[in-house]
Amino acid sequence: MGSHFLDSQEDLLLLIPGPTPVPGRVLRAGSRPMMNHRCPAFHELLTSITADLRGCFGTSGDPLTLTASGTGGLEAAVVNTLSPGDAVLSVVTGAFGVRFAEIATAYGANVTRLDFEWGQAADPAAVADALAAGDYKAVLLTLNETSTGVVNPVQQLAALAREAGALVLVDAISGLLATPCETDGWDLDVVVAGSQKAFMIPPGLTFVTMSERAWTASKSATMPRFYFDLAAAAKTLEKGENPWTPAVSLLYGLRESLDMIVEEGLSNVQRRHERLRDGVRAGAAELGFTPLAEAAVASPAVTSFRPPGGLEGDALRKILRNKYGLELAGGQGPLKGKIVRFGHLGYVHDADVLKGLSLLGAALDELGHDVDAGRALAAAREAMGR
Amino acid sequence: MGSHFLDSQEDLLLLIPGPTPVPGRVLRAGSRPMMNHRCPAFHELLTSITADLRGCFGTSGDPLTLTASGTGGLEAAVVNTLSPGDAVLSVVTGAFGVRFAEIATAYGANVTRLDFEWGQAADPAAVADALAAGDYKAVLLTLNETSTGVVNPVQQLAALAREAGALVLVDAISGLLATPCETDGWDLDVVVAGSQKAFMIPPGLTFVTMSERAWTASKSATMPRFYFDLAAAAKTLEKGENPWTPAVSLLYGLRESLDMIVEEGLSNVQRRHERLRDGVRAGAAELGFTPLAEAAVASPAVTSFRPPGGLEGDALRKILRNKYGLELAGGQGPLKGKIVRFGHLGYVHDADVLKGLSLLGAALDELGHDVDAGRALAAAREAMGR
Repeated sequence: MGSHFLDSQEDLLLLIPGPTPVPGRVLRAGSRPMMNHRCPAFHELLTSITADLRGCFGTSGDPLTLTASGTGGLEAAVVNTLSPGDAVLSVVTGAFGVRFAEIATAYGANVTRLDFEWGQAADPAAVADALAAGDYKAVLLTLNETSTGVVNPVQQLAALAREAGALVLVDAISGLLATPCETDGWDLDVVVAGSQKAFMIPPGLTFVTMSERAWTASKSATMPRFYFDLAAAAKTLEKGENPWTPAVSLLYGLRESLDMIVEEGLSNVQRRHERLRDGVRAGAAELGFTPLAEAAVASPAVTSFRPPGGLEGDALRKILRNKYGLELAGGQGPLKGKIVRFGHLGYVHDADVLKGLSLLGAALDELGHDVDAGRALAAAREAMGR
Repeated sequence: MGSHFLDSQEDLLLLIPGPTPVPGRVLRAGSRPMMNHRCPAFHELLTSITADLRGCFGTSGDPLTLTASGTGGLEAAVVNTLSPGDAVLSVVTGAFGVRFAEIATAYGANVTRLDFEWGQAADPAAVADALAAGDYKAVLLTLNETSTGVVNPVQQLAALAREAGALVLVDAISGLLATPCETDGWDLDVVVAGSQKAFMIPPGLTFVTMSERAWTASKSATMPRFYFDLAAAAKTLEKGENPWTPAVSLLYGLRESLDMIVEEGLSNVQRRHERLRDGVRAGAAELGFTPLAEAAVASPAVTSFRPPGGLEGDALRKILRNKYGLELAGGQGPLKGKIVRFGHLGYVHDADVLKGLSLLGAALDELGHDVDAGRALAAAREAMGR
């Protein structure tokens, strides 16, 4: 391929776990002119968004929309429910579990980290043991660990934490909509999501739900907060506003993407992500890739692979980007350079999986690997039921 | 006018001090497809943005781009330089001065507020007296007080604060580019700006500069911080990245709007804002409006007026929005309902001032006021030198 086809970053096939591809109609919605964020039309916009977010989170509460990256949402979860010195159990299965623990530590919580090997899901028995050995005010969980491509058994872990009387704070940033997460049904206290994941809009918004128990905790929580003060966000939401000037263009896009999500149906959205995961895993296996996560805990949002034949992950990614126009994500922390992460999150369809696999096969062939691209594509199609 | 002309919010004439109108080319740039925020093309984008921001701030340092509303930038200014218990002098001339003080208080600073009447600028003599009476670690200043339309003498106030050995933290959110602000030249320690103001892009980004003195202070500052940790932002900026996933679409828009700002020239941008202010004040005076701020301290970004004949500000705004498609801002705090705020900030030109005044005149006429719209428009044109 001539490089002039690839000199514009925007023409890449973007298969990373965020920012995810944004549908054309959402991009167009996001390019509408500005409005006053203190006027009736804005009130309608935010109120209708909040109503649809309830369905996405599976809650009767009001998910709060904040202008920030997902990390800001995690900070909001911590500082609105906890006080310095509070004992917190942080269940860590990868880079984003580490980050959640670091936030709680930065604000003075007394954090005990329970670490699992990267690529493994958290083991409920180990979590139960840890809970029995301490008296925790809160447990920090990751629904979908983006750095490894593992889904944690949040329902089960949350039940253990609730039994132990702890608040359950869940990073669902890359998991929500792609994999089940029932805020009310699983009795979760704080759930955090992000815009640039299955919500199919650009980064810049994060969504946070609070249970009644979390709101009660917030009244005595003394960690300092201002920008991320959720009580302020809940109060202004009553009149359809944010406390501060919100990212209006992203809200325009969100209104459109929520329409698409409602049109497709929440259960269909989840099934699609599971189907894509199965296709990616089946096809990549035929190409010689080794998945990091076992099938039972494999993420419907992103799949991490070790490349075949000891090939370095970042070297493969560079060829894919520069010669084939495919953007995959790399490894983080101890997995840096060792893996590639194939995102199948958000506005991604069966055809994108086939395209991605075909380019993976071409790059491997160019590097002298013996690959049968046809067999990989057939395996993916079969796994996706097509 | 038939209401079908006005049923779409996006067709309003938006003359508020933020979100300000976004140029078509910036809207289109912001609607480009997503990219990986950890890739060479992103590194180029953020690096080139940072270079142009230096000129906007008048600094040789690196302005840091954060995904948040301007209030988040103010929080970053406070938590990166101060410790709980630090004595802080907060110079308050309106709603945003109050907010800056509240942030410092929320994080445990020992805040002394020096309040001036809303509509007045801060008096350097009073600030000097306050500085002499205390031993302050930092002074909080507002460049352009958006709630009243007043520019504070920041250069003079900063010199006093520096003489007293205090750090100078400046909220320049609505002022930067519209009115002079020399970060290095005036020896300011932290300066905060926002995207939805003179930068002409939608809300969602805030920019923060730190002086060497501020960086030194940050090393011993113990207020907790994670999302707004500027040391993390500075460290990742070395490789052209943000610590967290940034608002990519807003950065696309910013790249385009910075091109426009450079094309127009920084001094021309400021002169345009001053010209628009003079036009708005002259024209509105002919319509019977009374400006809140005296000419000597009048903001080039927004002008607050009391409507003629005891007319309620919000009643006038409602008619303007619903019947004439003109969106003005209302009053805040003690000025709620009493004033209208006419924004002339960002992507606003002489013709917009004339349009706005013509609609103001029409609404007043409809309400039975005796107005001479022709004289108002002529006065505005004369004041703008056209």
